[in-house]
Formats: sequence, structure tokens, C-alpha cells
Amino acid sequence: MSGQEIEKLIKLTAKLPALGSRSARRIVLHLLKKKETVLLPLIESLQEVAANIKTCEVCGNYDTISPCSLCSSEKRDRSTICVVQDVADLWAMERVGFYRGLYHVLGGVLSALDGISPEDLNIEKLLLRLEKGETKEVILALPATVDGQITSHYLVSRLKDSNIKITTLAQGIPVGAELDYMDEGTIQLAINSRKEM
Amino acid sequence: MSGQEIEKLIKLTAKLPALGSRSARRIVLHLLKKKETVLLPLIESLQEVAANIKTCEVCGNYDTISPCSLCSSEKRDRSTICVVQDVADLWAMERVGFYRGLYHVLGGVLSALDGISPEDLNIEKLLLRLEKGETKEVILALPATVDGQITSHYLVSRLKDSNIKITTLAQGIPVGAELDYMDEGTIQLAINSRKEM
Repeated sequence: MSGQEIEKLIKLTAKLPALGSRSARRIVLHLLKKKETVLLPLIESLQEVAANIKTCEVCGNYDTISPCSLCSSEKRDRSTICVVQDVADLWAMERVGFYRGLYHVLGGVLSALDGISPEDLNIEKLLLRLEKGETKEVILALPATVDGQITSHYLVSRLKDSNIKITTLAQGIPVGAELDYMDEGTIQLAINSRKEM
Repeated sequence: MSGQEIEKLIKLTAKLPALGSRSARRIVLHLLKKKETVLLPLIESLQEVAANIKTCEVCGNYDTISPCSLCSSEKRDRSTICVVQDVADLWAMERVGFYRGLYHVLGGVLSALDGISPEDLNIEKLLLRLEKGETKEVILALPATVDGQITSHYLVSRLKDSNIKITTLAQGIPVGAELDYMDEGTIQLAINSRKEM
């Protein structure tokens, strides 16, 4: 075709999540067409991220500082830690803006299928954080999947001797959803967990 | 959230074709997680493209050299020029590998709606190439849209006084398609252009 450099960039781009070879070609062509306004600013931004962003040694979040701005903020409630699977979930919580406590990123969930055991997750650091005695509540915000639930139960078993309150996100019908479109498991769970009005 | 650098990169990524804010977040998180194996190689590849790829002064293709490797190749048939809308279409033709002639990238098609007139397209350069007398056939491979067809007719009117043969890609039912799924315009055109077997 035209230039090994272009071929290589298309291959690298096509491997990114949510992209395939077709969308990668479209993106690379777009970058070539808008070199000054798109490609060069993108390179600069990627370099800034590569040079400045690190993993927070406390919670596992990404930030320019470690401990991250959330862990070192005086405005956050230091008595609550929300345990999430991934930084994406931390970002989702922060977009809501309702939760004011701290976070702990596990970096995955236990999975017999994928061979992920407790040592592969950021669990020991969580236990060390809890030993400091600042924490009154741990909110488990792990995925509502089988692996997520198994991980939640594992964490509960590890924490049961502490005096820390352990909660988990409520499960049920999402806001705005129609019953007709919900799966049977969710409907059954919502009935079992029904609340008095 | 965490780090203006990350926010900025997500915004730039979300503006790329085929991406939105959600897929941009997924990609940026992936880059952060795989800094050594994905982010740094991607930056290097983007830099190589930005530094080395230029637009071919003859045909409009992207390559490390100008005239590009297609225009300067001795293996290509210099008597045929295939006119395409975009470099993406040139790449599509080259993927097939059947065509062995040269190309000319117009950089768009005429469009009254988008205010694209002949001066906005790479047409004068095409006429200059044809004046050299090397070309025996011009294949118009423009989109099978109204604007594409108008552009084809415009080019035919500009070339009608030359002795150059002008052809266009055949239109009809795509290979592997079922009639039931084709639009009526295509079926009608395929009937009108039917061939004896």
C-alpha cells in the first residue's frame, strides 16, 4: 500500500478496544488529513499522559500525583472506602458526584475461568488500609456478575473479624427501565428485595 | 476526576471518527493500563507518521516519498489513471490488488449542498497530468451517489475534447448479495445493464 509507517499505525490502532481494522483505517486517514489540528495535538496529549500519569500507591486510581488527588483531598470522607473493579468504575462513580468517600481499585475480580486468584488482585493493600482504623464502612461496588458476587463474598469473609461495616450497592430495576425489557433474574431479585413505601 | 491530562486525552480521542466519549474512555484506560506495551509504541508510531508521511504531489496519495511509491513504480501501468474520491478508496482498490495502473485522488466530490465546487477538488492537477499524453484511459471510480455521479459527468465534460478513453466502474448487484435485500434503484439498474451470457 503506501508507507510501512501507515500500515503499522493502522495495526496498532486496530488493536485498541472498540476498534477494528476498518475504523482504524478511518481514524488514521483522519489523522493524516488533519495533521496540524488533530494528529500533533493528539501526540502531545498522549505524551503528557505517558509522562505524568501514575497509579496511586494507595487506591490504584490514575493521577499525576501519588497518593492521588482523591486520596489526599481533605474534602473527602476518610471513613468510607468504596471498592471497585476498575478505574473505569471509579470514574463512573465520580461522574455521578454523589459519593464523597475514598476508593480502592481491585484491578479485576476473582475468576476461576480466567485463573484470577486473590493474589492477583489489589486485596492485601486494602486490608492494610483498613488496619489503620480510619475506615468505618466499606462499600462493595463490584460488578453484578457471578465473579463479582464471588469476589464480594470473599472480601466479606476476609473482613468479618473487623468492626467495619460492609455494604454493597442495591440491586434491582434500573431507573427508567421498563419491566418488559428486564431479564427474569433482575425481576425476581427486585421482587425479593422489595421495599415498603 | 483524575488529572486534567487524562480528561484532555479523552476529549481528543472522542472526536476521532467512529468514536464517542464512552469508547474514548475505554481506549484511554487501556492505554494507561498498558503503558509500555501499547501507549509508548502508539506514540512512537504516530510520531513516525507525523514526521515521515506526506501527500504525493502527483496523485494525492499518502506516502513517505513524493511522488509516491505508486506514481514512481516502474511496475505500474502508466497509461491508466483511476480517479478516486479519497485515499481510503485508493487503499480499498489496492487491497483488491487487481488494478495495476496509477491513481488520482480528487479529495472529495462536487456538492451543491456542501458548497464544494471544481476549484475545491484536485481537478486541475489531473488535467495537467493528462496533458502530458501518457494516459490512454481514465477510470472514474467515484461513489455511486448523486454527488459522485455529478462529479463523474463534470469530469467527462472536461475531458471530452481529449482522445482519452473514459470508463466508470460497473454498477449492479454486489457479489454475494440477495435480491431481496437490494434497493429498487440497484435492481432496476442491474436489469437495464443486463449482460448476455
